Amino acid sequence: AAGPSAQDLLCINTIRTLSMDGVQKANSGHPGTPMAMAAPAYALWQNVLNYDPADPLWPNRDRFVLSIGHASMLIYSLIYLAGVRDVKHGTVLDAPSLTLEDLKQFRQLDSRTPGHPEYHHTAGVETTTGPLGQGCGNSVGMAIAEKWLANRFNKPGFPLFDYHVYTFCGDGDMMEGVASEAASTAGHLRLGNLTWVYDSNRISIEGSTDIAFTENVQKRFEGYGWHVLEVKDANDLPAFQAALADAKAETGRPTLIIVHSVIGWGAPKKAGTAAAHGEPLGGEEIRGAKKAYGWPEDQSFFVPDGVLDYFQQGLGARGAAASKAWKDLYAAYAKEYPELAAELADILSGTLPAGWDKDIPVYEANPKGIATRQSSGEVLNAIAPNFPWLIGGSADLSPSTKTNLTFQGAGSFQPPEWNGSYGGRNLHFGVREHAMGSICNGISLAGIRAYCSGFLIFSDYMKPPIRLSALMNQPVIYIFTHDSIGVGEDGPTHQPIEQLAQLRATPGVTTIRPGDANEVAEAWRTILPMTGRPSVLILSRQNLPTLDRTVYAPASGLAKGAYVLADSDGTPDVILMATGSEVSLVVQAYETLKAEGVKVRVVSMPSWDLFEAQPKAYRDSVLPPSVTGRVAVEMAAPMGWDRYVGLTGAIIAMHGFGASAPAGELLKKFGFTVDAVLAEARKQAAKA
Amino acid sequence: AAGPSAQDLLCINTIRTLSMDGVQKANSGHPGTPMAMAAPAYALWQNVLNYDPADPLWPNRDRFVLSIGHASMLIYSLIYLAGVRDVKHGTVLDAPSLTLEDLKQFRQLDSRTPGHPEYHHTAGVETTTGPLGQGCGNSVGMAIAEKWLANRFNKPGFPLFDYHVYTFCGDGDMMEGVASEAASTAGHLRLGNLTWVYDSNRISIEGSTDIAFTENVQKRFEGYGWHVLEVKDANDLPAFQAALADAKAETGRPTLIIVHSVIGWGAPKKAGTAAAHGEPLGGEEIRGAKKAYGWPEDQSFFVPDGVLDYFQQGLGARGAAASKAWKDLYAAYAKEYPELAAELADILSGTLPAGWDKDIPVYEANPKGIATRQSSGEVLNAIAPNFPWLIGGSADLSPSTKTNLTFQGAGSFQPPEWNGSYGGRNLHFGVREHAMGSICNGISLAGIRAYCSGFLIFSDYMKPPIRLSALMNQPVIYIFTHDSIGVGEDGPTHQPIEQLAQLRATPGVTTIRPGDANEVAEAWRTILPMTGRPSVLILSRQNLPTLDRTVYAPASGLAKGAYVLADSDGTPDVILMATGSEVSLVVQAYETLKAEGVKVRVVSMPSWDLFEAQPKAYRDSVLPPSVTGRVAVEMAAPMGWDRYVGLTGAIIAMHGFGASAPAGELLKKFGFTVDAVLAEARKQAAKA
Repeated sequence: AAGPSAQDLLCINTIRTLSMDGVQKANSGHPGTPMAMAAPAYALWQNVLNYDPADPLWPNRDRFVLSIGHASMLIYSLIYLAGVRDVKHGTVLDAPSLTLEDLKQFRQLDSRTPGHPEYHHTAGVETTTGPLGQGCGNSVGMAIAEKWLANRFNKPGFPLFDYHVYTFCGDGDMMEGVASEAASTAGHLRLGNLTWVYDSNRISIEGSTDIAFTENVQKRFEGYGWHVLEVKDANDLPAFQAALADAKAETGRPTLIIVHSVIGWGAPKKAGTAAAHGEPLGGEEIRGAKKAYGWPEDQSFFVPDGVLDYFQQGLGARGAAASKAWKDLYAAYAKEYPELAAELADILSGTLPAGWDKDIPVYEANPKGIATRQSSGEVLNAIAPNFPWLIGGSADLSPSTKTNLTFQGAGSFQPPEWNGSYGGRNLHFGVREHAMGSICNGISLAGIRAYCSGFLIFSDYMKPPIRLSALMNQPVIYIFTHDSIGVGEDGPTHQPIEQLAQLRATPGVTTIRPGDANEVAEAWRTILPMTGRPSVLILSRQNLPTLDRTVYAPASGLAKGAYVLADSDGTPDVILMATGSEVSLVVQAYETLKAEGVKVRVVSMPSWDLFEAQPKAYRDSVLPPSVTGRVAVEMAAPMGWDRYVGLTGAIIAMHGFGASAPAGELLKKFGFTVDAVLAEARKQAAKA
Repeated sequence: AAGPSAQDLLCINTIRTLSMDGVQKANSGHPGTPMAMAAPAYALWQNVLNYDPADPLWPNRDRFVLSIGHASMLIYSLIYLAGVRDVKHGTVLDAPSLTLEDLKQFRQLDSRTPGHPEYHHTAGVETTTGPLGQGCGNSVGMAIAEKWLANRFNKPGFPLFDYHVYTFCGDGDMMEGVASEAASTAGHLRLGNLTWVYDSNRISIEGSTDIAFTENVQKRFEGYGWHVLEVKDANDLPAFQAALADAKAETGRPTLIIVHSVIGWGAPKKAGTAAAHGEPLGGEEIRGAKKAYGWPEDQSFFVPDGVLDYFQQGLGARGAAASKAWKDLYAAYAKEYPELAAELADILSGTLPAGWDKDIPVYEANPKGIATRQSSGEVLNAIAPNFPWLIGGSADLSPSTKTNLTFQGAGSFQPPEWNGSYGGRNLHFGVREHAMGSICNGISLAGIRAYCSGFLIFSDYMKPPIRLSALMNQPVIYIFTHDSIGVGEDGPTHQPIEQLAQLRATPGVTTIRPGDANEVAEAWRTILPMTGRPSVLILSRQNLPTLDRTVYAPASGLAKGAYVLADSDGTPDVILMATGSEVSLVVQAYETLKAEGVKVRVVSMPSWDLFEAQPKAYRDSVLPPSVTGRVAVEMAAPMGWDRYVGLTGAIIAMHGFGASAPAGELLKKFGFTVDAVLAEARKQAAKA
């Protein structure tokens, strides 16, 4: 096979040297992988990727995911060389996403080129990567999204969606469990629109992968049901392009292309060593590498004449034609299928469908009540028929989390081979919590509203993607049931204690623990319009009374995070605050105290972060600073409640792990009883 | 092949019916898997397991791990039938671990038979399982421990350690990423002493595994380098025992035995369905199953005559002989190798080696100082030569976490095939954080002191095993470096915010964030004697000044969690408190304020939970309730600090994600400057 043309080589070496120079100037970063993978990345972008640099928002663009996010200079160099345009507030600007100057500002304060690629920060970056394995999971979500969009919107003669998802991953990704889970899922779902390019350089931070990673990756992926190809030399462009063509042609299975590369390719001493991985090469090695590339040795950030043009002639021209053809197709489609076109426009703009909330139920007062997981399932099923692109599922727990969409036609998302349809709205993630979160981020990045569910304790298995939803401002909805020792018999391995604190402490996440069925309804009403951040719903396994809202304040107060549910005449002597299942407990205590003549207020506090976002005046109206008699009740770790009870208030919480027993007995054992609340409340009221 | 004998079948059906009855009486639990896997579990225990029910602490016993912890009635039935003795405070009692009455108390308050098997709660349970995949990871750690112990203690003619580890796992385990990571690790390490028995019943909670899990598990495990066997019928005892023999004979690779089973075997309607998985069968199905087994249909918890005896004749007699032989061997060994025998006794009793702390360095004052990751690496390397069974490593980050043991002979734990030795003390976990934690729990359960390390942000990838260390009281040491925005250029994906709060909120975990090199030394001095709980060390990437302890209070105050580092004459007007890298920042502010005549105190607060464990008098002496002028400074989420600053104090913390830039610039950007501390301190002091 012929090697790369001189022009190709010039482009490839430009990517390599820009990457080396960027890292060197920052005195921080990872030069080795961009040098190793410049050729395949170039070949993919320049000759294959269906991508229009002039419109990085084009809905049917191929997706490029750099799961090896530490190799960020690779994608920044490509974005610059390809001339990807900038985007602001959902609009493409007539300005480049990155300039040469931006590359020189790599890893500097407020630059466009942060250490790891960040979605929304740099146009052309499709997802935030760096935590290994996440890009792999995201890419499976993106491929699922394509299948779903194609199923819903494609019509005869109108192949609106047929994009392909390409992921560059490395040895680290291959070792991470989340990528394994995602790969198994992709194989099951037969995602023929997905290609992972595995940079097998056999070098990790501690040295050769021989010290920890000697499995047969090809065989493993064949076990997952993948199509596996191998390219023996990362610099062999024809071989790599042939593999890409094979991958595209295989529409019934995802493809893994194992590319053997030399980390730090071209560096005279550091090539092929861990020293090329995570630190600048140093002046001498850089000069040596540039010499090997036939580059001016002492010039930094050198872009030879013609390189930018050549990208425009290749990727630029191909992408422009493809996106124009698609836009023409879409215009015709909009005439033929105006409703679907309008729906697609809503999806792409993050607009909620009209009337999405019209069937949300109102719950009658009921002392026995229902579990919030149950009411949430009902509310979800009341919304979803009116919200066609709300899709999701569970990590093999939907009968318990009540997240299955049960209305006619909801269907399961499955490949035809498993007698299903890619138009199904119920996703079955299997017992793979971590991949579930990561996949939902990928689905969400396509504009589809994704939810996923599991037991709250297993949020521990999927914390990284929850954090990334927040960092990327993705409105993934996390539904976590079995929220406390109320789980009962399953015992301490299944009873969350610290998980609420964890989620509340995570920036950019809205955590809501509703106290009854009507708060659940309000929670959904609140969550869905929040399209710029993830939400977490924390729900009970056990029944909770449905409060009589003719007696207590309306549940609409939930939107403010905390609200006065029941009050005294005049300034209260003590404020009882609680969330979730403990709200009805403090309401019971309130009724007793009120009958005794104690001046008591009940604050339902389903969401701390919604409350903290309120003006101080509102917060002080709910929790008047002058009232220091305060009791907080929550069946979770006490961390954080001091903020609301102060140095002298009382917190009734869990101070260790739970136990296995019927829930009612656990509540007694751990002191979540009306009597316990009364005792603390009386002490606090006595301070007044 | 002949089927099971009548006597065998009686035992197997006793396991099945006890399991069904236990779940039914509790009205909660998972009957289907015990019914399906009773035959293989029986065959393993009765005919193969090298286990002495009369001495469940026998060091060379084979380990049985029930990774499918929801099938807890399976192991409880076995423990009861085998007559495993009880253990209390490390001593075997002359009483059974479980009685028939205990089985009847399944999942009841304070019973010996909680919903999922709990280590230390029920003798015979080797590790706490339930969160799927964890038992798989633990078992890899146990197998590593055996290899290490054998390498260290076995001598010609004295094969002290040659135990085998058996793990029962299910479809859920196979789907969990942590198990994938652990399997890849076990394959690399060539753990021929490990056998996983995979219960392939093709039923998960949402229904057939066809909806989510259709990979070729055999091929996947062959890719990992495992020896894979298949048993087509879980009830075919000869076939299963032949597979176990094959597994034992294959000493160069771990073995996966895929056992095809029918969940709820014998139940007339629910067998083979998801209905048999997670809820009681109901009276009718139980009667039907009992009829199918030839059992008295209306008798519960029925143990036919002879069954208990038969277990004693099989497992009991074999185990007694084996453990006696081993004890004789050990007695002879102790004469020949008294020092090694004494060391082994220390390991098994959790005693620290004499003089383990004698070389811990003291650091001279140094304004430039060193990173706490660096001083921690030095302290670790000063302790480890004197603590021969302290072993550990990193998830491919040891050059960054500084956890490599560098002294002569420390070595890498590797199989001979990779030119290493199982006596090595540096473990290479690869980029597999989750398995790393789970493996360390397994190593720790063997009495070996295990540590592991990574970046603090990636503690998110391994939260479940950290929690399980705490639940099991295992003294695993978690070393997390790169603790804040001090990470700098790597940016927000790599900068922890909420992780400190998460770890502090987790029950039973001691989290320490030392403020300088001498606090690091004290942290290690504090951690190692705490043999009943995990510890987490939080360390900086960047240099921190080494405080002059002739000017400021001694670092030994760390042991109390918080201590007065610098003080005013008389009652202070304001208390500045901080942890880690922010300690030197508040010390600088202190010096300025002191020079201005402000009465100010500095409290170094490296460990909240150690502080909370102090008597109130001490806590009040450090943070006098009368002093309400308080400023807390920490480059992390503010959650929890309100406890120490009260409703009117100030918290300088992170209120969102970090950014990518040199660390010094980030500190300015996010307000971690002496000026910012001074401004808040002056405001607070003005209140006095």
